[in-house]
Amino acid sequence: MIERPGMRTITLLTDFGLRDSYVAQMKGVIYSIAESVRIVDITHDVSPQNIEEGAFLLYTSIPYFPKGTIHLAVVDPGVGTSRKGIVIDCGDYILVGPDNGLLIPSAKRRKDFTVYEIKNRNILLDKITHTFHGRDVFAPVTAHIAKGMALEEVGEVVEDYVDLDLDLGKVLDNKIIGKIMHVDRFGNLVTNIEERIIEKFMRYGDEVDLVARNRRYRIRFLKSYGFAERGELFATIGGMGFLEISVNMGSAKERIGVNIGDGITLIL
Amino acid sequence: MIERPGMRTITLLTDFGLRDSYVAQMKGVIYSIAESVRIVDITHDVSPQNIEEGAFLLYTSIPYFPKGTIHLAVVDPGVGTSRKGIVIDCGDYILVGPDNGLLIPSAKRRKDFTVYEIKNRNILLDKITHTFHGRDVFAPVTAHIAKGMALEEVGEVVEDYVDLDLDLGKVLDNKIIGKIMHVDRFGNLVTNIEERIIEKFMRYGDEVDLVARNRRYRIRFLKSYGFAERGELFATIGGMGFLEISVNMGSAKERIGVNIGDGITLIL
Amino acid sequence: MIERPGMRTITLLTDFGLRDSYVAQMKGVIYSIAESVRIVDITHDVSPQNIEEGAFLLYTSIPYFPKGTIHLAVVDPGVGTSRKGIVIDCGDYILVGPDNGLLIPSAKRRKDFTVYEIKNRNILLDKITHTFHGRDVFAPVTAHIAKGMALEEVGEVVEDYVDLDLDLGKVLDNKIIGKIMHVDRFGNLVTNIEERIIEKFMRYGDEVDLVARNRRYRIRFLKSYGFAERGELFATIGGMGFLEISVNMGSAKERIGVNIGDGITLIL
Repeated sequence: MIERPGMRTITLLTDFGLRDSYVAQMKGVIYSIAESVRIVDITHDVSPQNIEEGAFLLYTSIPYFPKGTIHLAVVDPGVGTSRKGIVIDCGDYILVGPDNGLLIPSAKRRKDFTVYEIKNRNILLDKITHTFHGRDVFAPVTAHIAKGMALEEVGEVVEDYVDLDLDLGKVLDNKIIGKIMHVDRFGNLVTNIEERIIEKFMRYGDEVDLVARNRRYRIRFLKSYGFAERGELFATIGGMGFLEISVNMGSAKERIGVNIGDGITLIL
Repeated sequence: MIERPGMRTITLLTDFGLRDSYVAQMKGVIYSIAESVRIVDITHDVSPQNIEEGAFLLYTSIPYFPKGTIHLAVVDPGVGTSRKGIVIDCGDYILVGPDNGLLIPSAKRRKDFTVYEIKNRNILLDKITHTFHGRDVFAPVTAHIAKGMALEEVGEVVEDYVDLDLDLGKVLDNKIIGKIMHVDRFGNLVTNIEERIIEKFMRYGDEVDLVARNRRYRIRFLKSYGFAERGELFATIGGMGFLEISVNMGSAKERIGVNIGDGITLIL
Repeated sequence: MIERPGMRTITLLTDFGLRDSYVAQMKGVIYSIAESVRIVDITHDVSPQNIEEGAFLLYTSIPYFPKGTIHLAVVDPGVGTSRKGIVIDCGDYILVGPDNGLLIPSAKRRKDFTVYEIKNRNILLDKITHTFHGRDVFAPVTAHIAKGMALEEVGEVVEDYVDLDLDLGKVLDNKIIGKIMHVDRFGNLVTNIEERIIEKFMRYGDEVDLVARNRRYRIRFLKSYGFAERGELFATIGGMGFLEISVNMGSAKERIGVNIGDGITLIL
């Protein structure tokens, strides 16, 4: 079992946006049950119904939260169908959300993890809508766990769940092949190519060929934005620990004309 | 009187957006006065100066918050004019904001409620601007109430206030007539037609004619997004408890070309 | 030394946006170190890499926060280069961020302030990326200060730092010359012309000539939006304490076609 600090941290990650009151309603439900928790929004701007992007953003954020944090994530195109609701005990942290792969890459950060199917109807809201399990199912489950309910009381251990691998970039001959997992606010293209792959082949200052959308770009691999020329297209290791393609004082997304899910190749 | 839990919840709903520092300044004022409160943002993206939309979003969120919550709402085109500032005691919760109808539908959720006009100059900020009563008037009032100040000390009971009815959809012969109260992040059209009206006339799977912008659409009434075909226009009961018009993996707003305030009709 | 209340307030101001998980990771780091703090977002939508706008938004928000607040601000085009990280003791509040001028106008609100260069490697994250010092350097420094670490333990007093003056509008003959510091959500143009300058020359109801983009507009100086006609272009003192150019029920930014950094002139 994990330690329970005085004020438990709960994170929320959804594709609900903040324009609407959906996220607030989830928070209201949580605070109605668990008096002494704090809630941190990871993001609510996952691209609508993009499970893989949500999984990636959760996966890259997990290491920065306190021990004992409960991560509630909802990107849930199957809400109201027969897809299960699950809770995953990862030792140092707990994951709550739909059984559609969203939580699995974060669970796999641990060698051992246990998946529970949410079964205890008594801890959910009295009225469960077919369209908003984030509020009616996952929020109260999260709050009860934060208050100390054992996962065995929440549901039953299950062996089958929807798996998802974040396909994390690979090396093929003289190529590093990856794809764009997320486009950030600045228009930086966050790829699925991990720092440890890049480190093997490149040094700061090296030039490399980037291929995207059938076009080839000669770019430098730089330590940070401050080393790039104004308007220069370049590669760097971003804050998420993955290769990013950026334009200094500009948007790489607009420059290259790519989007989430598009492939990119580095030719060494 | 309502119970006062250890950490009182305050919610904020405005049309200020989060790009600017307005909301943060309100929070700073609240925390400067009331040490032990938590603040939850319902939304700050009410369409600018749209009192009815703000009233709707507040009304639909109220049930999910803890007993004793103070809801501070500011959509306030009349700020700086002679419009009153009011506090409403609703028993289980308290409402604070301008006297322009914004708070009234939420008050009417209770049989009895008492409206106070804010009169106590001593609890407001020293300098009251003409353009930002959210920070200078309503935030300190909210904080003092959270700390335990009796509403009688805040102001005087008034019988006249600006009324507002959320016109909640009606049935006329074989038609259900409503309008669009809110467009959410996904482009779902949230109507003012309550679930209990729909339940009387329709079952999941039924087809119905939707009329909007003088065009007629044959649509299904479905349990949730997961039962719709990709790209299908359909109706469902959304998380706010009202009929919503949606497109699976798309935007109903764009498909139909409507906006907040536009009427829609279902022909049974 | 400042008083340390039970629950210390930390504010965050960045240009990171909320679409990404960057801000959440900073919060995770802070809560991992400092259990009993509250975090308030001032804004994360500073125009990308616009140090002056960030400095302005921080400067105008500082007065509304509790004594003892620690303000962490990151608009940091030079991250990963040799620019220093600094902490500034301003007596009633503390500032943390990059040494690029961002914090200085807020420091200058006090007659005396002391600048420390961050030197203590032991309190930073084990791995410091070259692209995200907000999380790896400034967040842990802020958390340790919130927990009570003396600034002398964080770093060394330095006399040289990058200075920045918010050029606050000036009077020249019969002209008030300023520029646009920020455009808010409503399209209001927030200028750098302080209320005390305006008060000397104008009364509510006065008409004045506004020159922007080589065009001249005859506008009224009004107490608040509620006194303007629908669609009227007018001037007012906004909630930040500066002259704002607004359109009632519309956007002054769109009407005049200006943007942040553009000059404006009032002819008295």
